[in-house]
Amino acid sequence: MADAETELHVCDAAVTLAFSVLGKRWNGMIVSTLGAGSTTFVALRRAVVGISDTVLSDRLAELAQAGLVVRTVDAGPPVTVSYALTESGEGLRPILSQLGEWASANLEGPAH
Amino acid sequence: MADAETELHVCDAAVTLAFSVLGKRWNGMIVSTLGAGSTTFVALRRAVVGISDTVLSDRLAELAQAGLVVRTVDAGPPVTVSYALTESGEGLRPILSQLGEWASANLEGPAH
Repeated sequence: MADAETELHVCDAAVTLAFSVLGKRWNGMIVSTLGAGSTTFVALRRAVVGISDTVLSDRLAELAQAGLVVRTVDAGPPVTVSYALTESGEGLRPILSQLGEWASANLEGPAH
Repeated sequence: MADAETELHVCDAAVTLAFSVLGKRWNGMIVSTLGAGSTTFVALRRAVVGISDTVLSDRLAELAQAGLVVRTVDAGPPVTVSYALTESGEGLRPILSQLGEWASANLEGPAH
């Protein structure tokens, strides 16, 4: 019983840590979108339907802070800024893909 | 390019759907905790450290509504109410476990 409870807490701690990043609205979608490859701010905003410039900017800064996303500036001209997943962020891709498959099979869409 | 964009949106839709449930604070932890087996409200509240009675009650109702959790009343005496994962909820367990492993390896804990 004590062992089972300890295991519960350990499990909680890791899952809690994961959701400290992924539990925030948009973050999963941003990582998922960047999974298709390095992209610009504008392309990202277009792909993550419904997000505002400010929120996307904040989320990208947070994801960079958490080590999932890297921002690269190419001096140009023209200057271009692009965003990509780090190795850590790449590690989330197969898991998000499984989450998506699970959702498609088990949850009803917002239209229902 | 058109195909890549279409794929992005399809991917987004499924991941968005997943986070419509899991993006809500506590839900991942509740599912993760119930993964250890059927349990009572009180035991669940103790395991999900920091959650209040009201919020746990709301989240359990939402998770039941989404088909992830089932509430069972045993007429007793004494009357006992227990919560367990449905088959759909069980399908999340290996994914949450991978998320936890990823977080442990890639994210820094709140203490750092």
